Amino acid sequence: MTALDRTDPEGAIAAAAKRCSNWGRWGADDVLGTLNFLDESARLAGAACIRRGAVFSLAQSFDMNGPQKGWRRRTNPVHTMLDTGTDAERGSQGFPHGLGGADDVVFMPLQASTQWDGLGHIFDHGHAWNGRRAGDVVTSDGDLVTGIETAAARIAGRGVLLDVARVVGPDGELPDGFAITTEHLEATIAAHGVTVGRGDLVCVRTGRLARARREGWNDYAGGASPGLSFTTAEWLHDTEIAGIATDTWGFEVRPNEFDDAFQPLHQVCIPNMGLFIGEMWDFDALAADCAADGVHEFFLAAAPLPVTGAVGAPVNPLAVK
Amino acid sequence: MTALDRTDPEGAIAAAAKRCSNWGRWGADDVLGTLNFLDESARLAGAACIRRGAVFSLAQSFDMNGPQKGWRRRTNPVHTMLDTGTDAERGSQGFPHGLGGADDVVFMPLQASTQWDGLGHIFDHGHAWNGRRAGDVVTSDGDLVTGIETAAARIAGRGVLLDVARVVGPDGELPDGFAITTEHLEATIAAHGVTVGRGDLVCVRTGRLARARREGWNDYAGGASPGLSFTTAEWLHDTEIAGIATDTWGFEVRPNEFDDAFQPLHQVCIPNMGLFIGEMWDFDALAADCAADGVHEFFLAAAPLPVTGAVGAPVNPLAVK
Amino acid sequence: MTALDRTDPEGAIAAAAKRCSNWGRWGADDVLGTLNFLDESARLAGAACIRRGAVFSLAQSFDMNGPQKGWRRRTNPVHTMLDTGTDAERGSQGFPHGLGGADDVVFMPLQASTQWDGLGHIFDHGHAWNGRRAGDVVTSDGDLVTGIETAAARIAGRGVLLDVARVVGPDGELPDGFAITTEHLEATIAAHGVTVGRGDLVCVRTGRLARARREGWNDYAGGASPGLSFTTAEWLHDTEIAGIATDTWGFEVRPNEFDDAFQPLHQVCIPNMGLFIGEMWDFDALAADCAADGVHEFFLAAAPLPVTGAVGAPVNPLAVK
Amino acid sequence: MTALDRTDPEGAIAAAAKRCSNWGRWGADDVLGTLNFLDESARLAGAACIRRGAVFSLAQSFDMNGPQKGWRRRTNPVHTMLDTGTDAERGSQGFPHGLGGADDVVFMPLQASTQWDGLGHIFDHGHAWNGRRAGDVVTSDGDLVTGIETAAARIAGRGVLLDVARVVGPDGELPDGFAITTEHLEATIAAHGVTVGRGDLVCVRTGRLARARREGWNDYAGGASPGLSFTTAEWLHDTEIAGIATDTWGFEVRPNEFDDAFQPLHQVCIPNMGLFIGEMWDFDALAADCAADGVHEFFLAAAPLPVTGAVGAPVNPLAVK
Repeated sequence: MTALDRTDPEGAIAAAAKRCSNWGRWGADDVLGTLNFLDESARLAGAACIRRGAVFSLAQSFDMNGPQKGWRRRTNPVHTMLDTGTDAERGSQGFPHGLGGADDVVFMPLQASTQWDGLGHIFDHGHAWNGRRAGDVVTSDGDLVTGIETAAARIAGRGVLLDVARVVGPDGELPDGFAITTEHLEATIAAHGVTVGRGDLVCVRTGRLARARREGWNDYAGGASPGLSFTTAEWLHDTEIAGIATDTWGFEVRPNEFDDAFQPLHQVCIPNMGLFIGEMWDFDALAADCAADGVHEFFLAAAPLPVTGAVGAPVNPLAVK
Repeated sequence: MTALDRTDPEGAIAAAAKRCSNWGRWGADDVLGTLNFLDESARLAGAACIRRGAVFSLAQSFDMNGPQKGWRRRTNPVHTMLDTGTDAERGSQGFPHGLGGADDVVFMPLQASTQWDGLGHIFDHGHAWNGRRAGDVVTSDGDLVTGIETAAARIAGRGVLLDVARVVGPDGELPDGFAITTEHLEATIAAHGVTVGRGDLVCVRTGRLARARREGWNDYAGGASPGLSFTTAEWLHDTEIAGIATDTWGFEVRPNEFDDAFQPLHQVCIPNMGLFIGEMWDFDALAADCAADGVHEFFLAAAPLPVTGAVGAPVNPLAVK
Repeated sequence: MTALDRTDPEGAIAAAAKRCSNWGRWGADDVLGTLNFLDESARLAGAACIRRGAVFSLAQSFDMNGPQKGWRRRTNPVHTMLDTGTDAERGSQGFPHGLGGADDVVFMPLQASTQWDGLGHIFDHGHAWNGRRAGDVVTSDGDLVTGIETAAARIAGRGVLLDVARVVGPDGELPDGFAITTEHLEATIAAHGVTVGRGDLVCVRTGRLARARREGWNDYAGGASPGLSFTTAEWLHDTEIAGIATDTWGFEVRPNEFDDAFQPLHQVCIPNMGLFIGEMWDFDALAADCAADGVHEFFLAAAPLPVTGAVGAPVNPLAVK
Repeated sequence: MTALDRTDPEGAIAAAAKRCSNWGRWGADDVLGTLNFLDESARLAGAACIRRGAVFSLAQSFDMNGPQKGWRRRTNPVHTMLDTGTDAERGSQGFPHGLGGADDVVFMPLQASTQWDGLGHIFDHGHAWNGRRAGDVVTSDGDLVTGIETAAARIAGRGVLLDVARVVGPDGELPDGFAITTEHLEATIAAHGVTVGRGDLVCVRTGRLARARREGWNDYAGGASPGLSFTTAEWLHDTEIAGIATDTWGFEVRPNEFDDAFQPLHQVCIPNMGLFIGEMWDFDALAADCAADGVHEFFLAAAPLPVTGAVGAPVNPLAVK
């Protein structure tokens, strides 16, 4: 494990970025990053995990009761009706023969609730994934190169739940500010008796969402939280996983581990490693099932909504056991 | 097959609604309708269809280049950026150590592109699915009973592509106004050598989308189109399928088959039968693959985005073969 | 002045509604309510108040830094860019000869910031202004009868600032929960040496906004606040004013004066009296000027943005002295 | 009048920009441009035009029936309800004592309907008004310098209607592609017997909107249209008017007068001259009144909705005669 110098974020980020870079690994034109690891054989390995036919949604709700408070103009999703049953029942809609209809619309930041970060979401010193200039990739017209639609038909494969909260945490929840290290990840893997490797989609449960459910959102969005340690960058790189998601707002531990930094693990993982990161997922129902039957692997279908040019996208991930 | 009296839509709709009603079939509190057919064993049957690990997205794009023209205030999705790579590269975002970010937001009718109709989308004489009063179900606050979130963790199972366009159509496309009958469906099933039954998710390809791709959207949204005949209501009911989707705007044939009617098959299927209907799906890549390998069944994961209270929801369906 | 029985809101509201009703006063088809008082001669009286050519905007800001917290799905306005100067400067917009452009879009509840309540905003026992059934007036398609566009070309006339905060309040601010009575209004009128009458647009300053500016929004939207007493209903009716606005979220005192009620003065004034009510206006700069020169009357141009069918509308009111 | 070389837009734009530049005229920090001409005395001159108390709204509608077709992601305004009278009448809103309510929300491009262009709307070779770099002014966070809120308390003054359509046009409408020259403007001024000068707000009627009303929107937004000739730049500069508006989508004649150009007069007027330009105004009712009484001057209150950082803003302009 890398020793962390809290006073040198710039140097630490640069070193990790260099160590974990995948630029050029899949050619100059690549837009998929670590999804390249999720090939047909990896997907078949996932399919082999379907044994009972049970299914779990890993999505949080998409509504006004979410955790967003306006940071970066991220509001909660606002859902409004274009037509209602009340109007239909009253008979004023104008359709023939008793037909009535309801229709609706949503306004939402694409990272308001359960989502995948796209490869255009984060930049490092003005560069995006694979070494492109940030301004060549994401303009006001959206992500012209690595828009989330490029990942529309990829993300279905073998999912592994690492319930770090249950294995490591006191009372099944990690405290805010708890940095999950490679040792914690490995201990959880050992405790679960699973393997994690090339092309897998890793789901790390911290218990932060369960706490928010019990105590209210409070500062769930952007505040203190357990999460991945900056020092896991190498593990994330060397395992050759295809993607990783947590039940927290920010994936990595908050506050971040440097005296002055903002989401430094993102800065390493997204533009340099090309890693797909999921945030605000809900593993609680799945985790209860995994704890009950001792099986922590499953087929995971988590196709992002293909909003053209999006740098992140909402998703309703399904875990099938 | 029911003979269709074009001059008596009111009577025909009432008769079909009565014949095909599932009200009470799964209890007075049911909110799932035909998704009840999609149980764990049906899901396992779907999983058994994964043989190669190949995956296909069945979603159309979500952007301003879509077919919507404003009917029922349905616009195309409007995607705007909250932060861009151009800004990040210029260095004015204020993050430390070279971090830059992009973020985005979308405004979209929930039925703007590839979607599932929820059970609160259509009413029959002021009644919603399972006999509830429309105004008790869908108000300005959304669908309080059968909101699409109730289907969040269900729709993964065995998919079957019925490429009616390729089997029946001249040149692999059905003409606008072509009503697909039970006979056409059965002929396609026979030609493909597949079975369709309880709990399946049926994908009916008409070729309408391929034509729009070639010739422009024109009146894709709401205009003339091939689609299911009103007379298929009994087949849809008796097969006990869990859901059905087409590559058209409106699922059923347009113009509708009565002299004066609006989407009469919807009126039978959604509030009376409790059937899940998908619209504006894209089967073209999948269909080419099925034609090539002769295998028309697959695992289909098609979880709607769980916007709380939605009467329809966007989806990125994944077919895995 | 009516004595207020705090335990009988239902009776008190009914009595005030009856006493102050203007139903039928301007014919069965009327959609303007008290704006009927604002005729050409009243407008000329306003024009006569322009003496220096000084102008004051009475609008609060329209942005994410506003007071909304999600009640009734009211968010703050979300403003996003469709094109930026950063993109233009970088040269990637594709316009010829060095032209660059910026464009933008807003999503906002119509009552998110400075606004007029339309006559379709509030109902009394299922009835809207002038005795119409609420469901005949405002459906999912908006206000089909009294939409704010009907008031598009009316609201310019004589404005009068009643700086109750400065006249009555300790330290120039009324405390939260302070109910402004007819006596307070009359005392302020006398102190200012102005008149208030038929067709006037009355601006009541409570100082609540100044406090929010100093101390933060806190519960500005919906929380405790000074405001009009329920007992002013008769004064509002008998003066024949055309409209009235305050610098608070809710116009009337909060908490409301009955043990169990919600905005009872609204219930009397909007559907029964047909009164135009403005909320979340900013009188602070104007009030300072009026205090300095002792002149509390002015020309007020406060045309709502004519969103067709709106039950409320944002406005940038201009006071010209 | 400048002779126009249709083959040299680059040179012509540069020459006009240099000739008409106001950079530095009001200091390096100026954000108001030509609104500096609209001082208190100019405003008093406007007030003196109020003689009858008649008022006219110069706004078009804000709804889905507008002309936008998606260019630059500009849709028509989408207005949806958060609460309705139908729900209120049905009694399910949960308010006490018979209170019911309706609320609404809008999503709209800020230049969807009647609007003012802000000074950050157009750039010339990467520079914004007063010589600032475009990327220092308008980022994804909006216009940080000349946002429309800086003009919130200015635009009330003397309006002059130049009904060029009625004076010059055959049948009271200018044909599409008709370039209004300085000579046409002067002839209209002479025919009306008015003056135009420093600080005035000039309203130029082309009749294009009347034609759209009669024949449908067709290509109103961006298509062929009468409008100001590029050659009027000097007149716009030398008259020292505060602002100018037309009843067209694009202010200047369409197609533009160069073989290859896009809105070249904008490029001169906004970033170089600092001129406020209004588009999609509706002068028809006002024009009929002016034709009837022969008076073409009035008080014009046209305060833009102060969306913080907006590069354009909707407005409901009121003309008071």
